[in-house]
Amino acid sequence: MTDTVDRTTGPGATGPGMNERTSELDRAFVFHSWSAQAALKPLVIAGGLGSRVWDHDGRSYLDFSSQLVNVNIGHQHPAVVRAIIEQASTLTTIAPSTANLARGEAARRIVDRAPEGFSKVFFTNGGADANENAMRMARLHTGRDKVLSTYRSYHGNTGAAIVATGDWRRIPNEFARSHVHFFGPYLYRSEFWAATPEQESERALRHLERVIQSEGPSSIAAVLLETIPGTAGVMPPPPGYLAGVRELCDRYGIMLILDEVMCGFGRTGRWFAFDGYDVVPDLITFAKGVNSGYVPTGGVIIPDSIARDWDTNVFPGGLTYSGHPLAMASIVAALDAMEDEGIVENAARIGRDVLAPGLAELQAKHPVIGEVRGEGVFWALELVADRETREPLNGAVMGRIKAELLGRGLLPFLADNRIHVVPPCVVTDDEVAEALAVYDEVLGLDLLN
Amino acid sequence: MTDTVDRTTGPGATGPGMNERTSELDRAFVFHSWSAQAALKPLVIAGGLGSRVWDHDGRSYLDFSSQLVNVNIGHQHPAVVRAIIEQASTLTTIAPSTANLARGEAARRIVDRAPEGFSKVFFTNGGADANENAMRMARLHTGRDKVLSTYRSYHGNTGAAIVATGDWRRIPNEFARSHVHFFGPYLYRSEFWAATPEQESERALRHLERVIQSEGPSSIAAVLLETIPGTAGVMPPPPGYLAGVRELCDRYGIMLILDEVMCGFGRTGRWFAFDGYDVVPDLITFAKGVNSGYVPTGGVIIPDSIARDWDTNVFPGGLTYSGHPLAMASIVAALDAMEDEGIVENAARIGRDVLAPGLAELQAKHPVIGEVRGEGVFWALELVADRETREPLNGAVMGRIKAELLGRGLLPFLADNRIHVVPPCVVTDDEVAEALAVYDEVLGLDLLN
Ligand SMILES: Cc1ncc(COP(=O)(O)O)c(C=O)c1O
Ligand SMILES: Cc1ncc(COP(=O)(O)O)c(C=O)c1O
Repeated sequence: MTDTVDRTTGPGATGPGMNERTSELDRAFVFHSWSAQAALKPLVIAGGLGSRVWDHDGRSYLDFSSQLVNVNIGHQHPAVVRAIIEQASTLTTIAPSTANLARGEAARRIVDRAPEGFSKVFFTNGGADANENAMRMARLHTGRDKVLSTYRSYHGNTGAAIVATGDWRRIPNEFARSHVHFFGPYLYRSEFWAATPEQESERALRHLERVIQSEGPSSIAAVLLETIPGTAGVMPPPPGYLAGVRELCDRYGIMLILDEVMCGFGRTGRWFAFDGYDVVPDLITFAKGVNSGYVPTGGVIIPDSIARDWDTNVFPGGLTYSGHPLAMASIVAALDAMEDEGIVENAARIGRDVLAPGLAELQAKHPVIGEVRGEGVFWALELVADRETREPLNGAVMGRIKAELLGRGLLPFLADNRIHVVPPCVVTDDEVAEALAVYDEVLGLDLLN
Repeated sequence: MTDTVDRTTGPGATGPGMNERTSELDRAFVFHSWSAQAALKPLVIAGGLGSRVWDHDGRSYLDFSSQLVNVNIGHQHPAVVRAIIEQASTLTTIAPSTANLARGEAARRIVDRAPEGFSKVFFTNGGADANENAMRMARLHTGRDKVLSTYRSYHGNTGAAIVATGDWRRIPNEFARSHVHFFGPYLYRSEFWAATPEQESERALRHLERVIQSEGPSSIAAVLLETIPGTAGVMPPPPGYLAGVRELCDRYGIMLILDEVMCGFGRTGRWFAFDGYDVVPDLITFAKGVNSGYVPTGGVIIPDSIARDWDTNVFPGGLTYSGHPLAMASIVAALDAMEDEGIVENAARIGRDVLAPGLAELQAKHPVIGEVRGEGVFWALELVADRETREPLNGAVMGRIKAELLGRGLLPFLADNRIHVVPPCVVTDDEVAEALAVYDEVLGLDLLN
């Protein structure tokens, strides 16, 4: 700490050398998620507003990634920023064991949007620990060990800390070994040789029931599903699938946990993705969209019938920053603004009237698009080398596509052989038109062939 | 969302009814960590400054808990609040895959304080996922499965999300079952029939070596230790213990992870607790004190020799809010302020000159204090029903002690039969004198007998 330059330089300062300084510090000192570190050339981002972000040189990008599909309300929504500033000026942090006004107000707003019967919220720092605690509740509530989830899923990166912990809190939590994976529906690359959505649904349900029977229903605490698998490829479930899973869970006394971390809080054009699927889960997990990630947070929404289990028994889970005031203030402001400004309705309208037809048009034009799936502002383009064989486009070509999109000022979300089209819920018609034109141009380039 | 009152009421508003409203919302909608929910009466906290917090009626408390031993810099330090506001006004959130100035500056400041050879920081949301990722790194670096830690430890509450995840990221992480616990040194209640600190150290090391040999050294990736076990009772290791563990780790090719989540960043009167123990770990985990919990964050500090493993291989760990800008800005400001204002030195001086003699005096006066342990602003009073038998004071009496301390305006940290004396590092001589007088009065009350 010998130089003091960096202390007097604002976080979003523009000017020569700031991008370079940011890159140098990043390369020297920062270790990145899910990456090989040596070849990384992270994009410098210094500021943002709505659907755009920019670097220190003022070069801007249209954000069709919503970062990690979390900035539902767009960047730097003034009401949410104001709420964070107001809370930061008053009380930044307080222990979970206290009562805090912002926390109660946030929990009430979340419960208000959940189905009948849900009454309490347990707050965490993100999506992983939301799922951790939902699985813990299901295991303790049912007295059973196993949890079932699909191979095409992402539920978080944690799996060892409570096992490392030595004190009593470990004992009721030593169940992590009991996990079984099964196949969910995915018609485009069906595991079940299905030809129609109805067939895929019926066969995927039969597969799940066979797994339940084979594992032993009385050993299974919960089925954990992303309502719409996100990172795995934005795959809205076929007709009847979620209702069928609910029925299987009821038949075998298994709890249904729906992971709404990515698909919840507006992304689909509804508050919860499951609101569109005629199903009510036993536990709901959330993060990302609830406050657009402005402050790290997440949680579990719990019905009274299950919360009651820990009225007089100690719940064996917790964390230092559960219900952190800054996060809570940002939830209150984000949910109020989303409601007041019709942001969820905007996502629905954009999905129905703009993205659905626009992406269908792209598919008609570009044979490289094998399938278009999604709703609201939650879409995937499945890119293929061959429409007949559905052979996925390879990584090298995907890399070139990414570079070309970035070069045209579009910040994309790429995963495997897919482009996920996932702008903020506040995206405008004009911004979608701009993005569609960029996708159109890049997917028509020669580098694909 | 029918009433709008709460939208126009500031988070720290004072006035009649605000405490009641906060309590009602909390009881109706908030599910609390590590608790039976029904009988909870959480203390309402609306604001704070330095070593004090207060409710909406203006009733204030001297915070000798630092909440969950995290508010090292005190409540609402103006420079840290200012940095959060400045960053919030510029860019609240950005994906981990980008480069961001605040993130690089935060990582550099952390690396600057770590021993020679440490070069990179992987940021998480808190302490649990810091330990998660350190264990992941140790397991992958050594190619071994088992991790050893002590029974008297707390390392976090997560243990299942990556096992639930279905995609490829699960595969390199399916090791959570391989965990073994052993006994660390704790002379006051020795597992080893030791009579002196030297004996305790020697015998605890022999025990650890036996466990290593019995488990098979070639199956052990890491020993994970809190440098000074915190929640378990603030137990500074006896002379030679940590150096001995280091030597055992070296002899058997095992990595040493030191968990500095609670004891790091000033709490002991040093930047890292291990700086006082002639030992250098292979990986360091941190959270809490690094930014006093003003925004949820934590991480792993990694030496170049280990970080290099993932130069060309993908590191199989990550999270949405890794290196969150608000958290990063608060780290930069907190570490700069701690340095500029001599806050770590203050913690050392208070420990040596004020708390050590003051707590010794209390012990001399009150037979209920069986042992006083600690350094800096990190102390425990072990309360016993009988000094001879060392029988722990029971929970009912501890509950009464807590109520009496709170009634006198002191917010205490109680765990099992102990009072942890853990004020912010900025605590003043006068505040310590005030707290010592309250402890003195309460421990002299009749309710103990
Ligand atoms: C569906 C789903 N669940 C859980 C998570 C994990 O959330 P976090 O990264 O906040 O731990 C994610 C993250 O992408 C997710 O998409
Ligand atoms: C030593 C230690 N490690 C890890 C943790 C877990 O941190 P968090 O609650 O932020 O997950 C704690 C929390 O008290 C701790 O004291």
